[in-house]
Amino acid sequence: MNEVIKLLGNHRSIREYDTSRDINEEQIEIIMKSAMAAPNWTNGQQVSVIAVRDSEKKVELAKAAGNQKWVEEAPVFLVFCIDFYRAKLASEKNGKEFRIVDDVEAIIVGSTDVGIALGTTVAAAESMGIGIVPIGGIRKNPQDVIDLLELPEFVYPVVGLAMGYPKTIPSQKPRLPLEATYHKEQYNAEVQMEMIDQYDKTISSYMSERTNGQDTSDWSSKVAHFNESRFDPYAKVTGPTLKKQGFHFK
Amino acid sequence: MNEVIKLLGNHRSIREYDTSRDINEEQIEIIMKSAMAAPNWTNGQQVSVIAVRDSEKKVELAKAAGNQKWVEEAPVFLVFCIDFYRAKLASEKNGKEFRIVDDVEAIIVGSTDVGIALGTTVAAAESMGIGIVPIGGIRKNPQDVIDLLELPEFVYPVVGLAMGYPKTIPSQKPRLPLEATYHKEQYNAEVQMEMIDQYDKTISSYMSERTNGQDTSDWSSKVAHFNESRFDPYAKVTGPTLKKQGFHFK
Repeated sequence: MNEVIKLLGNHRSIREYDTSRDINEEQIEIIMKSAMAAPNWTNGQQVSVIAVRDSEKKVELAKAAGNQKWVEEAPVFLVFCIDFYRAKLASEKNGKEFRIVDDVEAIIVGSTDVGIALGTTVAAAESMGIGIVPIGGIRKNPQDVIDLLELPEFVYPVVGLAMGYPKTIPSQKPRLPLEATYHKEQYNAEVQMEMIDQYDKTISSYMSERTNGQDTSDWSSKVAHFNESRFDPYAKVTGPTLKKQGFHFK
Repeated sequence: MNEVIKLLGNHRSIREYDTSRDINEEQIEIIMKSAMAAPNWTNGQQVSVIAVRDSEKKVELAKAAGNQKWVEEAPVFLVFCIDFYRAKLASEKNGKEFRIVDDVEAIIVGSTDVGIALGTTVAAAESMGIGIVPIGGIRKNPQDVIDLLELPEFVYPVVGLAMGYPKTIPSQKPRLPLEATYHKEQYNAEVQMEMIDQYDKTISSYMSERTNGQDTSDWSSKVAHFNESRFDPYAKVTGPTLKKQGFHFK
């Protein structure tokens, strides 16, 4: 097993930072160059990242994300955005119609490009000993994020990334058995319920150990709860704010 | 600069493979474990990957992607899917309503999770000397891919990944200047047109060198052309097929 594989398999979310250690500008640029060298859709490079260090801005972003204090405490907070603003300028420069933002394709392309850049950023940062936690919660109040970072039309904030040197290293959360998520030649639907039952036991034990038996909740109950009600604050604003930014998906 | 940073900064697309070298099952499992260990939205793990080795299936997938012969020639072709099928089972198991698929949030969450898993897969594969090229073209004929891989409701194929040992290593395509895609404290809209002009010259020279002066096309003309007309085959089917799979985004 090579060093990269070891690193990637060792990921965990870091929400507490060693506040005596900063991340310098050179480090962020190295990480960003790695992220931007990754593949993207037809070399359109539909991503922008805004790095925030300013304390007041981080307080506002922590609020926008539903009071996640690690957003405020991290020395650097990156905001990953779908970016078709450059594509619009490219269309104008060449006298062409700009139509891709009128279809859901733009949401898929932009979000996938954001994910690729984010996954690569995580690998780059962790290789330097920096801890991270992604913050999708910024989509709870996207207009606040848009105003704060002065995002133009056709740019939408998808996910944040709090970064800092870890104060402590938490245990690693187990994932679904590989049999559930990795399929050979065709989708294996039959095995899914069994894998969920098995994983529910794994997560229940994991939670119990971490809380001295106080919390024995399993995976499927959390997912079910989330998909029934916890996503409401997002659903209320995501579609309308995307449209306001110029994404008239259908 | 550490080895991971060197690796990530060195990415290029590989479309020609050394057909004498296969990728074995153990290697794919190592790569998939890396991908699944990466972050994802609220640990919902909204991704499935289907690995295809079967020659006839690869021929069909190459056709679905608009006759991309490297899909056929690669020893392994991975298909990355948004997967809310497990989420639906989790809702049923816990007697909760399953509503997230009725909002565009599910498209953003699923595509971002796919991107993170894909970006991590690329890093893992390349660390083992394996070359890759992502194939978004599978979205031109999503129903064919769904039928071929027997994808159930709430599962949607977003992007493929052709993998094989490189026959030759092509030159690396330059990216937009970092000043265009990486912003400090707020989005830098003013600089974008200047960066596009500068990058157009870079890409025009790069193309000219690669084609002995036959092709001197620049970046913005390609992006403009794509966004006016080349995305039509996608736009025609993406929305309707997403809806058929159960994603009633609004």
